[in-house]
Amino acid sequence: MLKKRYLLTPGPTPVPPESLLAMAEPIIHHRTDEFRKILLEVTEGLKYIHQTKNDIFIFSSSGTGAMEAAVANILSAGDKVLAVTGGKFGERWKEIAEAYKVDVIPLEVEWGKAVNPEVIKKHLKETPEIKAVFTTLCETSTGVKTDIKTIAEIIKEHEAVLVVDAISALGAEELKTDEWGIDVVVAGSQKGLMIPPGLSSICISEKAYKKIETSDLPKYYFDIKRAKKSFDKSDTPWTPAVSLVIGLRATIKMIKEEGIENVIQRHKRLGEAMRQAIKAINLELLAEDSPSNVVTAVKVPEGIDAQEIVRSLRSNDDIWIAGGQGHLKGKIFRVAHLGYMNQYDMIIAICALEKTLKGLGHKFELGKGLLTAEQVLFSQ
Amino acid sequence: MLKKRYLLTPGPTPVPPESLLAMAEPIIHHRTDEFRKILLEVTEGLKYIHQTKNDIFIFSSSGTGAMEAAVANILSAGDKVLAVTGGKFGERWKEIAEAYKVDVIPLEVEWGKAVNPEVIKKHLKETPEIKAVFTTLCETSTGVKTDIKTIAEIIKEHEAVLVVDAISALGAEELKTDEWGIDVVVAGSQKGLMIPPGLSSICISEKAYKKIETSDLPKYYFDIKRAKKSFDKSDTPWTPAVSLVIGLRATIKMIKEEGIENVIQRHKRLGEAMRQAIKAINLELLAEDSPSNVVTAVKVPEGIDAQEIVRSLRSNDDIWIAGGQGHLKGKIFRVAHLGYMNQYDMIIAICALEKTLKGLGHKFELGKGLLTAEQVLFSQ
Repeated sequence: MLKKRYLLTPGPTPVPPESLLAMAEPIIHHRTDEFRKILLEVTEGLKYIHQTKNDIFIFSSSGTGAMEAAVANILSAGDKVLAVTGGKFGERWKEIAEAYKVDVIPLEVEWGKAVNPEVIKKHLKETPEIKAVFTTLCETSTGVKTDIKTIAEIIKEHEAVLVVDAISALGAEELKTDEWGIDVVVAGSQKGLMIPPGLSSICISEKAYKKIETSDLPKYYFDIKRAKKSFDKSDTPWTPAVSLVIGLRATIKMIKEEGIENVIQRHKRLGEAMRQAIKAINLELLAEDSPSNVVTAVKVPEGIDAQEIVRSLRSNDDIWIAGGQGHLKGKIFRVAHLGYMNQYDMIIAICALEKTLKGLGHKFELGKGLLTAEQVLFSQ
Repeated sequence: MLKKRYLLTPGPTPVPPESLLAMAEPIIHHRTDEFRKILLEVTEGLKYIHQTKNDIFIFSSSGTGAMEAAVANILSAGDKVLAVTGGKFGERWKEIAEAYKVDVIPLEVEWGKAVNPEVIKKHLKETPEIKAVFTTLCETSTGVKTDIKTIAEIIKEHEAVLVVDAISALGAEELKTDEWGIDVVVAGSQKGLMIPPGLSSICISEKAYKKIETSDLPKYYFDIKRAKKSFDKSDTPWTPAVSLVIGLRATIKMIKEEGIENVIQRHKRLGEAMRQAIKAINLELLAEDSPSNVVTAVKVPEGIDAQEIVRSLRSNDDIWIAGGQGHLKGKIFRVAHLGYMNQYDMIIAICALEKTLKGLGHKFELGKGLLTAEQVLFSQ
């Protein structure tokens, strides 16, 4: 059968033709009024998606760069921080903080479960000198969504700042930066923003700026003070990834046209359809209690290797889903419903899973995943 | 819901990225060794797809141009010809022949039915001075496939040449030009050849060349003698559509890699899945007896306007199927399974039809079309 590539990974996600064509236009120079206007427009667009009036700075880096920027700009030597680690990306906060020799209290959460905000409250009470709490809105390795709204409520009362890795969740999960009171949000380009990897962003509240003022950790490329100084002249301190910024302008235009609330609702519906379909074909969700609408992590039954499902889809159909990470490798697979995706992408994914699972001898009623997805997707 | 465009029309058909990228490269000049090499390669590729050693010439025109070339080059004033007319494109043969004041005997066939080859045999017996028989391998307006193999057997014994419009069928239906003994085959670029409209081709047998030698009808742009003279120097008489030829090189490469027999088998399987799914959701096929694997024409039940189905798919989902033509307008819709399409395109089309038909109040069991398609597509 003729293969077409279907990218259902939680980043990179498919890039819409509108953006591909914009990025294919002849490159322009960045120290020009033309580019400055684009940079301002894109930054304003990101604020709209973040639902914030706070400053946002764009880096030419992967999302991890913006995570490092958060650590290096907000903290000072000897600071104590709390890092919620319930997956590969939660652990990354801990790793970055440790690389800067910050005193990290890891708040370990079982992979597949969400942190209980009350535990954070308890930590802040027990250790009032905690300067920052590092969290992950959607933990991409497990598909778990964190209750950032409640956590923000708790931290508001405290000296600590709340830092949220929204890399995979921005433009997919509800995220009301100002209303909830989030101090720092980091994001990446190859997820809900629907462009290729290469851009990251950081959003900074007044409370976070105060920490930045006194931070003494070393930084240069990711120095937010430098970024702010340049941005005050509608500029970037270093050469920006020009074509990616231009590509992002195109996808932001699409998000604005659809409306951020509708974009979130779409992800919600796609996620719900995927989860119901997965259960209908006798599989279990890893994140049963607090599933994200970004990616669905699926447990495979005894006797089936999850990596084999990933490989089969790839080699037979050129359909790319993700396997498990860390100790979940072989035990789960992950299907994204993120970014430039609609109902028919879910239908393709579920159909391909039905085909592959039948081939691997998994017992379920053929067509039931598709029917279930239809019922969710087409209900009023 | 976010819309993505899905083109399920019987031409233009989706263009694969490999070809889009090739056509986006800087244009080259055509009177160069570089282009001559490409033209030769593409022409050889078309011969492979036609399964012929006969000459093939490429025109910069739509398929209708190559149809006119067939008429104008093969016939002479006062010639009598037989034209099988069982749809819009069969009728086009008659219209072109009449425009050249050729004496046309129309062999009228009910739209949705295939011509009985025995009737052609009878005509040739009754009117032995018939110089050519004009037929259509797939009648795109009805989705009917003509039994060209049997017709070719009959005509072989006769002085007449067999002319086949394979515009929508080339690269989708079985077509063994040399083995079956077809004298003239015309094709177009925006169908099974998977590139945009703008190129057509004509394939000429020795028997057809003899008619060309003596033809006295007026022609210039579509003059096959001129085309042959130029092609003997690896050239075209007029400026060719350079980027389309380069795009065609890319899709021919894909067809060769898949193998023409596999390409035909793929269309057969997609067509079968579509037909079975259509019946599973309580709709009827227009071409029940001799359906093509190019496009499926579907009758809608009383009380539903087929144009409404076409419009709904377009406006709600950006899915493009075709309505009925001529007197079938409003009574049928047509879904293509042609060219750069695979199993998941069928799944999308069927899912979208289920959604739309439910919305219009048609009675059927939701999910049954999808299940039926899965059973056909994934059977060994």
